[in-house]
Amino acid sequence: MIRFNCDYAEGAHENILKLIMETNMEQTPGYGEDHYSEQAREMIRELCKNQEAEVQFFVGGTQTNLTVIAAALRAHQCVIAADSGHINVHETGAIEACGHKVWAIPGADGKLTAKQIWDAWESHAVNESYEHMVQPKMVYISNPTEVGTIYSKNELEEISKTCKECGMYLFLDGARLAYGLTSKENDLDLETIAQCCDVFSIGGTKTGALFGEAAVIINDILKEDFRYIMKQKGAMLAKGRLLGIQFIGLFKNDLYFQLGDHANQMAQKLKKAFQKAGCSFLVDSSTNQQFPILSDQILKELGKDYSYCYQERIDEEHSAVRFCTSWATKEEDVDQLIEDFEKIWEKCKSADKR
Amino acid sequence: MIRFNCDYAEGAHENILKLIMETNMEQTPGYGEDHYSEQAREMIRELCKNQEAEVQFFVGGTQTNLTVIAAALRAHQCVIAADSGHINVHETGAIEACGHKVWAIPGADGKLTAKQIWDAWESHAVNESYEHMVQPKMVYISNPTEVGTIYSKNELEEISKTCKECGMYLFLDGARLAYGLTSKENDLDLETIAQCCDVFSIGGTKTGALFGEAAVIINDILKEDFRYIMKQKGAMLAKGRLLGIQFIGLFKNDLYFQLGDHANQMAQKLKKAFQKAGCSFLVDSSTNQQFPILSDQILKELGKDYSYCYQERIDEEHSAVRFCTSWATKEEDVDQLIEDFEKIWEKCKSADKR
Amino acid sequence: MIRFNCDYAEGAHENILKLIMETNMEQTPGYGEDHYSEQAREMIRELCKNQEAEVQFFVGGTQTNLTVIAAALRAHQCVIAADSGHINVHETGAIEACGHKVWAIPGADGKLTAKQIWDAWESHAVNESYEHMVQPKMVYISNPTEVGTIYSKNELEEISKTCKECGMYLFLDGARLAYGLTSKENDLDLETIAQCCDVFSIGGTKTGALFGEAAVIINDILKEDFRYIMKQKGAMLAKGRLLGIQFIGLFKNDLYFQLGDHANQMAQKLKKAFQKAGCSFLVDSSTNQQFPILSDQILKELGKDYSYCYQERIDEEHSAVRFCTSWATKEEDVDQLIEDFEKIWEKCKSADKR
Amino acid sequence: MIRFNCDYAEGAHENILKLIMETNMEQTPGYGEDHYSEQAREMIRELCKNQEAEVQFFVGGTQTNLTVIAAALRAHQCVIAADSGHINVHETGAIEACGHKVWAIPGADGKLTAKQIWDAWESHAVNESYEHMVQPKMVYISNPTEVGTIYSKNELEEISKTCKECGMYLFLDGARLAYGLTSKENDLDLETIAQCCDVFSIGGTKTGALFGEAAVIINDILKEDFRYIMKQKGAMLAKGRLLGIQFIGLFKNDLYFQLGDHANQMAQKLKKAFQKAGCSFLVDSSTNQQFPILSDQILKELGKDYSYCYQERIDEEHSAVRFCTSWATKEEDVDQLIEDFEKIWEKCKSADKR
Repeated sequence: MIRFNCDYAEGAHENILKLIMETNMEQTPGYGEDHYSEQAREMIRELCKNQEAEVQFFVGGTQTNLTVIAAALRAHQCVIAADSGHINVHETGAIEACGHKVWAIPGADGKLTAKQIWDAWESHAVNESYEHMVQPKMVYISNPTEVGTIYSKNELEEISKTCKECGMYLFLDGARLAYGLTSKENDLDLETIAQCCDVFSIGGTKTGALFGEAAVIINDILKEDFRYIMKQKGAMLAKGRLLGIQFIGLFKNDLYFQLGDHANQMAQKLKKAFQKAGCSFLVDSSTNQQFPILSDQILKELGKDYSYCYQERIDEEHSAVRFCTSWATKEEDVDQLIEDFEKIWEKCKSADKR
Repeated sequence: MIRFNCDYAEGAHENILKLIMETNMEQTPGYGEDHYSEQAREMIRELCKNQEAEVQFFVGGTQTNLTVIAAALRAHQCVIAADSGHINVHETGAIEACGHKVWAIPGADGKLTAKQIWDAWESHAVNESYEHMVQPKMVYISNPTEVGTIYSKNELEEISKTCKECGMYLFLDGARLAYGLTSKENDLDLETIAQCCDVFSIGGTKTGALFGEAAVIINDILKEDFRYIMKQKGAMLAKGRLLGIQFIGLFKNDLYFQLGDHANQMAQKLKKAFQKAGCSFLVDSSTNQQFPILSDQILKELGKDYSYCYQERIDEEHSAVRFCTSWATKEEDVDQLIEDFEKIWEKCKSADKR
Repeated sequence: MIRFNCDYAEGAHENILKLIMETNMEQTPGYGEDHYSEQAREMIRELCKNQEAEVQFFVGGTQTNLTVIAAALRAHQCVIAADSGHINVHETGAIEACGHKVWAIPGADGKLTAKQIWDAWESHAVNESYEHMVQPKMVYISNPTEVGTIYSKNELEEISKTCKECGMYLFLDGARLAYGLTSKENDLDLETIAQCCDVFSIGGTKTGALFGEAAVIINDILKEDFRYIMKQKGAMLAKGRLLGIQFIGLFKNDLYFQLGDHANQMAQKLKKAFQKAGCSFLVDSSTNQQFPILSDQILKELGKDYSYCYQERIDEEHSAVRFCTSWATKEEDVDQLIEDFEKIWEKCKSADKR
Repeated sequence: MIRFNCDYAEGAHENILKLIMETNMEQTPGYGEDHYSEQAREMIRELCKNQEAEVQFFVGGTQTNLTVIAAALRAHQCVIAADSGHINVHETGAIEACGHKVWAIPGADGKLTAKQIWDAWESHAVNESYEHMVQPKMVYISNPTEVGTIYSKNELEEISKTCKECGMYLFLDGARLAYGLTSKENDLDLETIAQCCDVFSIGGTKTGALFGEAAVIINDILKEDFRYIMKQKGAMLAKGRLLGIQFIGLFKNDLYFQLGDHANQMAQKLKKAFQKAGCSFLVDSSTNQQFPILSDQILKELGKDYSYCYQERIDEEHSAVRFCTSWATKEEDVDQLIEDFEKIWEKCKSADKR
């Protein structure tokens, strides 16, 4: 069984493991107050070209999201998200458990537009019963989104402008940011993201770290007492240096971006093979997640040797599924998958009506 | 200005005030442990033909909803509701503030169907990532709904059956129950509701009481320690007898149903006048809330002497608004409104393109 | 059975009921946006000599406390209270249910001192692990306290000064404020309280209203979006005018203070009778709650005709209990109680060792 | 600077790092559903001699505690703990943030007794106002406690018996369990703990793992839907196998107990040196944490080369501090510390009045 179901099936890139080994018996302060964490923070500030950014490290994405949102909102405030947003669907109500509604808005291809955000905000602002409704105070977007799409520089700037006009914080979830920033269609960079967002995360777990997400806080208001909330949410790692060390490894010699690029190349190779066969896609993704629509028969055959992730039913005979590549994907595995797929496709051609 | 914007613009029915006056200087225990509350509970049990029902009284509807839901759900569980449901829209995130997601499902005419409920539940049950998603454990419906529609006996029984099959509690919000049970189209009664629901409320605030909602708990599991949660949520009235006394007043000689019937008659009179003029409606309501679609010009004219509630924009020139009648609506006020409406309609006819 | 167990055994003062009757069929806007509520707000602002104060009305005390605290604190902040404080003991964890720790400090006679507050704050401020501990941000005091004691002007000013130095909000729970302000030992007034506190409440439920607490918000920061939180907590009464009307009744012609004075006089009469017999007290109270220490035998006898509230066991044969007077206490009932007490005391004298 | 301030200053034991390296590129399912986690669960079940125990792995202790408690309690229920308990002091209100009061009881030497637990429970059970108070439903104890003391078998069995009689869950926080189980004074083992507790944790972070706590759930009620709550609290590690692998490493060939024993021996060596000099202790600890009371002058001198943790002021010239040894403590460092301490002590002797 070769796994394409997710991008966290392996451990960590060897550079990162090496750093962990080398520093293992050094004594350091705990809870992220060590010099490695500080060095990693400095590297991230450099990349963001923002010397005032506060950087805090987390073990996982749900933890990052819930801590950032709990730290930012008062009791009556909500966060706007695309309905496919991770916080709306796949965090078992973590945000609501902190007391806040996720205001889910139907998102085209997993994305929100500046206009949707404005309309949502305005619908609350002009409503006579506004006190009877949750107050939108934060916008959550994922880049890449949960379906692999990415925001353009122009889109992000428009969203940022709208958020500022509405007095709402903009939070970008970058759990797969490496794959977004190295997409061929991408025109964003960390500097622009830091200019547009009040807070955003840089994911390590899915790009070569054992685990690790960096929350980068730009807006001064959001910095206040942030670490208290981290501790309260169980998000302050005792041996916090493990996070610092891993991010040092990721950003040393641009490893992070190389790993992102590799996964994207593998995904595009796979995408082309699916396209060549004439198969359609749930969305058009330029990143490491691909969502081909395949007949149930083909999926059954493929499933014998390859794991993928079920996404949604399209019609009685077809489903969209997710194939993920990652920093760790071997090209030989992709080639094997393509070869097997083409055989199965040929075999099933007559049966496949789509 | 004559108010048709809501059904709680006046105080209480005279019978109720009289009872409050008569009992005023009597000393009783507090927090709903007095003999008046007990007597009211007994009356409600009789009406529901369920001697085991636990009845607890609340001051307001949001309080009732959030207490019932907080008492019923564990941290990871959510409540399914129509997207127009009061808990989803007009309680400032009260349910989320208790830690629970409201899973909003697009509802036709404010209602949910048994099939929608089943599909929602099943989509969770069969999902591989079910642990990463909130677990549906309660279904919330309003009867009448927020747009005045009602459930038929058959619909409620189907929903109840589905909930039982899925292991979910059924909670019916009866803030306007009087107006539902006395609608000409209604075939439900309290006995059936008590058979179908795990818990439901009977609203007094909008039907002749100064304030007061009765929560009727049928399912034994939901009874356990319920009053602790009431107290925690600030929902235990010190002079609890005020609630008992008012419900005695409401159910004595069927006053509750007479008041409901009166409001419905007034609403139907109004509805017919709107229909006669050729105006269309947002939904077809047989209860005390009517949602005519009128031109902005007509609304402006009408707004000079009558208050109504803005509902939603229909097109560039028309909006749907809500006219409410209530137990206290005077027929002469309705007649005056109709007369004025007809004049304005006539005047605006040429301008009104709809 | 004559009830001395609490100060909310009856309904409302006749003046208040009269006002409710007279205004009953008037149509007003809901949720506290009516002219009666506005008039009551104005009266309270006058009494507090603070035209900028925001006044919001609540049905009950727990509701008031939890809403004020939930509106004031961020997720990691706590409220300091005496261990006997109502929020610490008798609100079923309402504050914790909003996510905040109550930092309980042993209070002499139910009170906190400025020094205790400073010490608590400093112990956090200087702690190396401060981020691992809740951050004190509000101080909650009751006046009168839960055991009937009151703060002097000097004490309150010291506490206020300390809170300002520590950057903490001061919240005074005035559920029984009438009885405090009319105590013979009192030197506080509403103006001073408004100068010292960031927010405080004026209780109506226990002083002649059917129900009602007024939250007076002095600090501008605490005013922001306060009504959203009220709605979320189920604390916005639909027919909000009922609260405004009652506070008009309470403050018209100083009724509120007359009612407080009456209860205190009745309590002092009772206190003197207990003292005369040689009985000691749990605390020395100058307000409407008295806590005599009596033998179990005497309590048993007294309990046949009078209800009191059990407070705590003192030794194997004695307990402290609470006798409450109120605005509604009849002098003849107090006289009867004294007469019966003296007879029982005499009878039990030989058995009573204390 | 040699660190004795905590027991998590280094990385992981070499055996554990080796296992992480060896398995690094293997593809496994995420979220703890891999075969390594399963194997570690099996090892723990064996050690506990309980084949029905559910074992779930967490990254950190606060996360473990808050998830276990949030999963166990309903909204109105609280957890009883010693006032020195980690959940009461050093988790930034994590339990309250989940909505639950921590009922803190003064604990002798960090411990609770069966009698204290019974008394607390009974004080609630017999209280007339029980519904106005939080309901005790869980007892939290730490073993070793936060001040290094341990429960005897007899004490734990008494506590367990009391909890069962009161219908309360018993939760033992074993963040430092290795150091407890290998103390010379210990007569507990995992089997007994599993018999006595409804749920308990086995800490890895402080005993040789990079991170990791195992929650062992014995009571079937607490098993239901536990993983949903883990995910909601951000406590489900994507590459969950990292936890399984580390616990395999810890329990293979009894490494866990050897590491515990080593730390305890180092601590006893240090303890004896302090004792020999005539210094007294805050508590008498047989585990890896020692709390000598030293003069500020000595502490200042020692602090130049050794880090320790400040505990509390004893008098104007003395403080209690914490020295921690761990699995990683080198004997040569302990010897050096003792040597330096003895020199400083000698030097300060005349100045030290205690």
